[in-house]
Amino acid sequence: MAHVGLVGIGVMGREFALNLAENGHTVSLLDRDIEKSREVVTAGSALDGELIACADESTFVNGMAAPRSILALVPSGGPLDAVIESLTPLLDEGDLIADLGNSYYKETERRVLACEAAGLQFLGMGISGGAEGARHGPSIMAGGSPDSWARIKGPLRDAAAKFEGEPCCDWFGPGGAGHFIKMLHNGIEYADMQMIAEAYGIMRDGWGMDAPAIGDVFASWMEGPLNSYLVEIAAEVARASDPETNKPMLDMILDRAGQKGTGRWSVIEALHLGAPASMMQAAVEARNISADLEGRRDSALLFGAAPEGKFVAQGKDQDSGQEAGLRQLESAMIAAKVCAYTQGFEVLRRASEAFDWSLDLAAIARVWRAGCIIRSVLLDDISDAFEEDATRKLSHAPKFTDLLRNNVDGLKTVVAQSVGGGLETPALYAALSYHNASRTQHSTANMIQGLRDRFGAHRFERVDAHGELVNGPWHER
Amino acid sequence: MAHVGLVGIGVMGREFALNLAENGHTVSLLDRDIEKSREVVTAGSALDGELIACADESTFVNGMAAPRSILALVPSGGPLDAVIESLTPLLDEGDLIADLGNSYYKETERRVLACEAAGLQFLGMGISGGAEGARHGPSIMAGGSPDSWARIKGPLRDAAAKFEGEPCCDWFGPGGAGHFIKMLHNGIEYADMQMIAEAYGIMRDGWGMDAPAIGDVFASWMEGPLNSYLVEIAAEVARASDPETNKPMLDMILDRAGQKGTGRWSVIEALHLGAPASMMQAAVEARNISADLEGRRDSALLFGAAPEGKFVAQGKDQDSGQEAGLRQLESAMIAAKVCAYTQGFEVLRRASEAFDWSLDLAAIARVWRAGCIIRSVLLDDISDAFEEDATRKLSHAPKFTDLLRNNVDGLKTVVAQSVGGGLETPALYAALSYHNASRTQHSTANMIQGLRDRFGAHRFERVDAHGELVNGPWHER
Repeated sequence: MAHVGLVGIGVMGREFALNLAENGHTVSLLDRDIEKSREVVTAGSALDGELIACADESTFVNGMAAPRSILALVPSGGPLDAVIESLTPLLDEGDLIADLGNSYYKETERRVLACEAAGLQFLGMGISGGAEGARHGPSIMAGGSPDSWARIKGPLRDAAAKFEGEPCCDWFGPGGAGHFIKMLHNGIEYADMQMIAEAYGIMRDGWGMDAPAIGDVFASWMEGPLNSYLVEIAAEVARASDPETNKPMLDMILDRAGQKGTGRWSVIEALHLGAPASMMQAAVEARNISADLEGRRDSALLFGAAPEGKFVAQGKDQDSGQEAGLRQLESAMIAAKVCAYTQGFEVLRRASEAFDWSLDLAAIARVWRAGCIIRSVLLDDISDAFEEDATRKLSHAPKFTDLLRNNVDGLKTVVAQSVGGGLETPALYAALSYHNASRTQHSTANMIQGLRDRFGAHRFERVDAHGELVNGPWHER
Repeated sequence: MAHVGLVGIGVMGREFALNLAENGHTVSLLDRDIEKSREVVTAGSALDGELIACADESTFVNGMAAPRSILALVPSGGPLDAVIESLTPLLDEGDLIADLGNSYYKETERRVLACEAAGLQFLGMGISGGAEGARHGPSIMAGGSPDSWARIKGPLRDAAAKFEGEPCCDWFGPGGAGHFIKMLHNGIEYADMQMIAEAYGIMRDGWGMDAPAIGDVFASWMEGPLNSYLVEIAAEVARASDPETNKPMLDMILDRAGQKGTGRWSVIEALHLGAPASMMQAAVEARNISADLEGRRDSALLFGAAPEGKFVAQGKDQDSGQEAGLRQLESAMIAAKVCAYTQGFEVLRRASEAFDWSLDLAAIARVWRAGCIIRSVLLDDISDAFEEDATRKLSHAPKFTDLLRNNVDGLKTVVAQSVGGGLETPALYAALSYHNASRTQHSTANMIQGLRDRFGAHRFERVDAHGELVNGPWHER
């Protein structure tokens, strides 16, 4: 009898099945197309565990020992609900369905309640790491029925990525907590990627560097605090040649970005929670605008094309100027990374409070240290910072205060240069602006409040009488 | 018999009842507290129309000639649903309920369907202009059951603000179209107010000007393209003295901004539609951060307080420098206004397409020319621009192309100075960034696509093979 069942043998399902088998687990496989399951059985025949291809739902369910644990790796939304609906009548009380897709967390909450009403357990689990991660160790963020976690966590911890031997796999809270955390992981991923794209743009358009040279810069950043999976693959992408033209591959990729929605969801949730998420927002917006190729062409005809030109002095000082510029750029990226993490974890903190999830921020940072797309050397320090004091904003933890203090001048210089040179660095600007706004003792919101009271009689607080709301003298006419 | 009934005699209800009476209409009034209705009857006794205070729902309904038109000016959400529920059994087939509150447009769609199922008509109507507007002429944006519009539009057009004799009052589409437009009106209002606050900040913190002098600058802007209600009242607010301390009133207002949600909703809807709304977003975020007084204090202790200092040269050239600076600031505001309107109307265009509303953008601009909070001289030009060609992005209409071209250098200079001086101008930056990104012929989204393909096999388009999606060479290992 299998310990675990796996429904949906697409790219991710296939790789995760092989991963479980490699870790000695017996796994029943189900897909609308049994050939896919059979192919995985063959591919995994030399592994420790046993893989069993099932022809239909009843074979699949009856081949597992109760209480059953079924992992669904099917597209979220309709296909997932169809799987749940077809399995529910065949399952026994206490059986577990875990959704490993990128479901919207409110849908997960609905499914937890619906399954519990039907006597089943439901877990919503974000997994990150792409196909490679699914095969060799993803990061796993679970939420939902707490009772079921103890039962399923063994095989998942075996399959998960390890950071210094510790599995990057945890349960974080009830309902949609796991999928919310995975969504926010992707929001941070959007911000990280946008920052990398902006750094690339500065080197390409500001300094006229070619793609392989830019790749070398990214590779050099792997020696410092920017060491991360995304910077590592940015180096690889920038250094790659197009086999067709032998030009740098990057130069042959059309600059129209796609998106699947988790970045946008993250920003929307942050807005609902009132938590700043301007860096993710900048990333989503940059992708939106990039997608409008025709509109960009029309605007360029009317206003001239951007970017307008390089901003580094040419001539014999160019090399040393560029070297200093590169140091500033690395600094800017470090400062901006601290701001991106700070915003991301503050969104999680607000969600935890709003939804009563009691999220353990240190534990979240721990499961992001390996396996997932945003893994970086800083995440170990982040988990330490929240272990020390989970109530503190990340940028207020000494290590991160220092990183930000020591690098914010670079951020300011790079943003100022980019504004002057007409280069787009909206995520870096958002980081700088967030940092400045967050430490402003004398903002301009008094004008906002004055206007709101003047036209809408909304009233305001006085600086000398905290709390009480009063109307301005403009109403006495 | 009354022509119109009005439920909810709060500030807005009272003023709107008097407005209708002034225009010769007989209006039945209903409130939980009949004294409020009686007080309005007394206040309006000298007006042309008749106001009738009703003690309960049945007196109210029976005192009106069928088919009835009932205007609800009650808080949106639960209170509105309670009013609908209590009136529905008393009404006859074809009677109309119009919601004049700030309801979320999807709620309005639900109410339109529910009322139609009960044989009633429902209109969702945004009205703007505050209490003053309600009394002397608001701007009215209606949506919902189209058949009912012909019946109610007479009294509403009478009561509405007039622009050169034309009522600022129209029906724009089915379902929640009216409330969506009102929401977006408020989104643009958020951006307008944030720009004004940023200009104020530059004058206060960048040039050390006092509030009355800043008020004079706002007043001077009334002579040019920035002529608008919000700039007018910004001058008034900046010039006002605090009767208690005789200091400028602005200096005594606590810099913690409130918000009621329509700005945030606008950004969320824009995100769902994939339409850039970075200026509204900057405004919402600035308010969010301003609200965290304690966090700002803590961060200032760790990082030093922002803003850091003036950025205008002191000494004998100060005056002429400041004069040039003020011209640039006005330019910056003009360019940013064009971007804010462009973003706002593009959100409306996307919503119209997504929801199949066939919105008339020129007509929307027309009802915003008077009565509402965002009224400005530019709105007449906007309606002309969309009448000429409604398929064109606003910034691509010649008048607005020129405004943007002629003023964008000022915007760039002001944003660059602000970044250098550590002043917060996120909405102005968003305008500049939107303008630049929108005309970029060589963005950095190729790096985003390269990374997405590298970690997630999402594939990308090549510059030399439009449309086809391919994988990068990094997968061949």
